[in-house]
Amino acid sequence: MTPEEANEKLDAHRQRIDELDREIRALLNERTKVVENIGKVKRECSLPIYEPKREEEVFRNIMDDNPGPLPADALKRVFERIIDEMRTVQRDRMKREQE
Amino acid sequence: MTPEEANEKLDAHRQRIDELDREIRALLNERTKVVENIGKVKRECSLPIYEPKREEEVFRNIMDDNPGPLPADALKRVFERIIDEMRTVQRDRMKREQE
Repeated sequence: MTPEEANEKLDAHRQRIDELDREIRALLNERTKVVENIGKVKRECSLPIYEPKREEEVFRNIMDDNPGPLPADALKRVFERIIDEMRTVQRDRMKREQE
Repeated sequence: MTPEEANEKLDAHRQRIDELDREIRALLNERTKVVENIGKVKRECSLPIYEPKREEEVFRNIMDDNPGPLPADALKRVFERIIDEMRTVQRDRMKREQE
């Protein structure tokens, strides 16, 4: 492979990464909206915000039949971060509403 | 809202979360494949694996024009985790190939 060919290939791959990242961002924002809607229902009905059983279900859903190549433990850590960040968004919203 | 209505709403929202999570997982696996292809090109041409400039570009791509509601700093932390996990996948692959 010449350096020019390598650069062309890298450029194409990087464009694809940027596209995928914007798609992932769109899904994360959509997920945040749904989490906010869940929070609204829970607040209206005074239901507990944190439900460990449901959290297990969320992890099972993404860990089951993972086709890879991203390993299960890596996938789990990414979703732990996602869930944690969305919990913080919820907590901040509740604080603001109480103030 | 009656408890029954609340449960119905929560069920519908949770189904949507599970769908979104499987879509996010598919995109993460696709992204890992592209990262692996980038690694192959770099190894073949002895190019450096870590390029801080490109990393900045990746963050700029997701931080620019983020429509929310997930805040920019939360989004950044999620992508730091994603990038970090994929770097580990690459490192493990290189280790295995050298052995």
